Order: sequence, then C-alpha cells, then structure tokens
Amino acid sequence: MLIDVKPLYSEIKNSIMDRMSKLKKVPKLVAVTYKPDPSTISYLKSQEKAAKRFGLDYEIFEASNSSEVLEKLRNLSEDKSVNGIFVTHPLPELDEMLVFENLSPEKDIEGRHPYNLGMLMYGNEFFAPCTAEAVVKILENVTEITGKNVVIIGRSTTVGKPLATMLLRRDRSATVTVCHTKTKNLAEITRNADIIVAAAGKAGLVTKEMVNADSIVIDVGINVVDGKIVGDVKEEVSEIAKVTPVPGGVGRITTALLMEHVVKSAEKMNF
Amino acid sequence: MLIDVKPLYSEIKNSIMDRMSKLKKVPKLVAVTYKPDPSTISYLKSQEKAAKRFGLDYEIFEASNSSEVLEKLRNLSEDKSVNGIFVTHPLPELDEMLVFENLSPEKDIEGRHPYNLGMLMYGNEFFAPCTAEAVVKILENVTEITGKNVVIIGRSTTVGKPLATMLLRRDRSATVTVCHTKTKNLAEITRNADIIVAAAGKAGLVTKEMVNADSIVIDVGINVVDGKIVGDVKEEVSEIAKVTPVPGGVGRITTALLMEHVVKSAEKMNF
Repeated sequence: MLIDVKPLYSEIKNSIMDRMSKLKKVPKLVAVTYKPDPSTISYLKSQEKAAKRFGLDYEIFEASNSSEVLEKLRNLSEDKSVNGIFVTHPLPELDEMLVFENLSPEKDIEGRHPYNLGMLMYGNEFFAPCTAEAVVKILENVTEITGKNVVIIGRSTTVGKPLATMLLRRDRSATVTVCHTKTKNLAEITRNADIIVAAAGKAGLVTKEMVNADSIVIDVGINVVDGKIVGDVKEEVSEIAKVTPVPGGVGRITTALLMEHVVKSAEKMNF
Repeated sequence: MLIDVKPLYSEIKNSIMDRMSKLKKVPKLVAVTYKPDPSTISYLKSQEKAAKRFGLDYEIFEASNSSEVLEKLRNLSEDKSVNGIFVTHPLPELDEMLVFENLSPEKDIEGRHPYNLGMLMYGNEFFAPCTAEAVVKILENVTEITGKNVVIIGRSTTVGKPLATMLLRRDRSATVTVCHTKTKNLAEITRNADIIVAAAGKAGLVTKEMVNADSIVIDVGINVVDGKIVGDVKEEVSEIAKVTPVPGGVGRITTALLMEHVVKSAEKMNF
C-alpha cells in the first residue's frame, strides 16, 4: 500500500498561507549558486516554481568566483529584506565549513549549519534539515512513534544522523537504530523494525524480504535509473507493507517545509 | 572481567605532557560557577587537583549573580590568556542556551555548545563531549568497532546522542541503536549487541541476563547508593562479560580528555 502524503502537504500549505496572510511583507528566499551543473539548474528551477506557488519572493544569485560566494553569503546574512538563504551543494572549490562561517545560522533554512544541527540534540528544531523533518512529519501523521523500533538505513548529515536525534526526542521516544554499508545482517534488523527509513541513496536497496506486513517504510531515496526517478525501496515492497511513493512522497513534504522555514524566519524577523 | 583503562590513561597523559613541553606558556582552564551545591564544590575540587596533576593553570570563578556569570563568560571568551572554560551545570536561574550565547565555542572544552555538537555530525570532533569521547577511546583501545552492533542505553545530550553520531563516523562504522526508558524488550536488544554502553544514570540497570559472554560493556553511570559510587551495571555482569569499572573507568579517561582539550585549545591559540 502506498502512503498518501497529499493531505499532510495540504495541511502544511494551508498553515503557511494562513501565517503569510498575517505578515506585513512578503518573505524572501535567495538561492546562491556557483558553477551549477545541469541537475542543480533544474533543481533551482523547480525551487523557483515552488516559491512562486507559495507566494514567496525568490531570487537566484550565480556567483562568478568562489570569493564572491562568501561575500554574497555575508551580505545576505545581514540583509534585513532576506529571510532565508539556500546554498546549492556541493559548491566547487569551496570547503563546506567556509560556507557555514559566512552564513548566519538564523537564515540557514536548510538546517545544515553546525549550530542548527547541534540544537537538534537539545530538542530545538527551529531549523531542522528539511528532509529529516519531512520524515518526522510523515511518521507523526501516520502512526504513534513512541516505543517503536525505527531502523534508519543511511547515516548522512542531511538525513540519517539528524533524523536519529529527532526521533529520540522525548515527545517521540522511538528506539532508533542507524544502519549503513558496514552493517551486518541488515535484512534481519529491518525485518524486526516497526518503521524503516530508507535513506541510503541506492535504488532497489529495500526488498520484500526485508520488511514485514506491519512495517511502515519511508522512502527518502531519489535515484535516476534509466531516466526515471526511483527511490531506495523496490516497488514490490508496497505489496506487503505501507510505503511512501517516490516521487511525490518525502520530497513533496520536504519542499513545503523549506518554504515553511522561510516563513518562520520572516515571523521571527517581524515581517 | 574488568577492563583496565590505566594503560590508556597513561597513554593520554603522556601525550598531553609531551605536547605541553612544546608550548611556550602554561595552558589555563577557568571554571565558572554560581551558587554551587555541595556535589558541585566537591567536583570542582577534584577538577582542580586533576588540573594541577597535569600541570595546568586553574582558576575557579564564583559569580555573585546570574548576569555576572554571562559577563564573565564573555570576558573569558575574549581573554587571550585563557584556553578553556568549564561551566558547572545546571546553573540556577540561567537558561542553558543563554550560557551558550555568551560562551565561545572555541573555548568550550566540554563540547556542550550546539556548534561543537553539530560539528560531530560533520565528523569534526575537535571538542567532543568528554564522556562520549572517553567511551570512543576505550572502545577503540579494546576492540575493532567497524560493523559491530553497539547498543547505547540513554539518550542524553552529553553522552547518548553525541556518542551515537561519533560511532557512526566512517572510520568507526558501528551499527548503532539508542535505547531509553520507552524502549520495549531492552534485554533482548542488549543480548544481541556486541557492545553495550550503559549511560542511563540508573544503578543496577544492566544485569547478567542482558549480556552475553562476548559482550563488551562500557559503564558510564555514576550513581551514589548507600554512600558508595556505583555504575549502571551490576557487579555480577563482570562474571560473564568484559566491563569497565566504576569508579576508575570512563570517569578517569573523561578527566584526562578534559585536560587534553585545554592543551589542544592552547596549541590552536599558539601558546
């Protein structure tokens, strides 16, 4: 069975619209990029469309050299008309930490700045990484998390690690296991889980044999196979368990939450 | 069997002494406290002794009101003669986040600042929380971590959550499960683990029935029972599995690492 995230998406969108109607100014998101490759360009185009759909001001700044990136990040961090800064990644020639040193955590709507990631450990999710937050919202929407065994496959800094921390928060209290390429007996571990989050970025990783009839499977993967976008979970899994679709599952909620972060920042800045 | 951490302690101490001999100035640690209770006072006394044992300059500042705490933290953060700042906690009347806003992450030798905790997710452990780091050092000393199933009992911000992140780092690559009070079938989970880290702060939590003959058990607990300091692991467990002692196990290494962080900071500050 596929999990339909559309009602949740509508709920988030309605809440954003409602909150925006209470602002005096239109919130603004700026994307900063440098030497974007074709997939980055296409991502930015769809981001622009989403921003317009939500009624946000949107701008793309393409730097002509790497020091211009850092200068722009410093300026945008100070700019009182800008609520959120999106940085395409990886940025060529630039160390990620250098990017963060020039980006205010207060406009880090992606939740990638070390300060915001550390805040998660204190239970403060003002800017959580959007994809991890999307998984949490979907789970809270479809099940009771407390006491459940959650197995996360993948230990990335954008999903696996922050998600583990978020699911341990007292109001959620899942028992969390993080698995990865070095994990032994992965199938045995996932078969015993109540919830499986597939976030390894590997098409076809989760098979029928790895789930049980009560499993809830959240598919975070976005892989291109034969020109088609597929997740980390094989289609066959939905014959047995509940699975979020790809595309149109976690990604859809992630986009909405990125926009919600811009609005949240605007509220904090008294827009 | 008890795990003897003395050789590891000596190794860390020798490395610190060696590195200190290469400095031009003596590194300095300042502890800031406010309305300390008896256990905080006794902790600070033992910290002072440890600092002297390692040859560090040490000072205790007792604030007379809460705003003086914050002012002192700002001053010490700027003070070029100070390498590390220790803040007793919890501080009465003061929100923890307010403390962090006034404390430079560059002198946060305890590794409690959100910035330093977030850096762990990027694999940067310059200032990791000392107790979590002690567990990692002990494990690296007694076993090969890669591919092992590690079960951490306890999800604190000082041990459980940062430790999970640290054990997932690629050079360690443990499969990590974090359990807590809401976990179902704790004994079943721990029995299947290669490594158990008991960090719940509950005396007698880990019993013989929860381990197997090959288990390595790291006891992080420090509990006072009938005036005696005991860990989270029952004595009987050492009849079957390998266990670190309390006192004289994790705590001993933690203290050494706190001092090591001061030296590390001094090196960075070109002392």
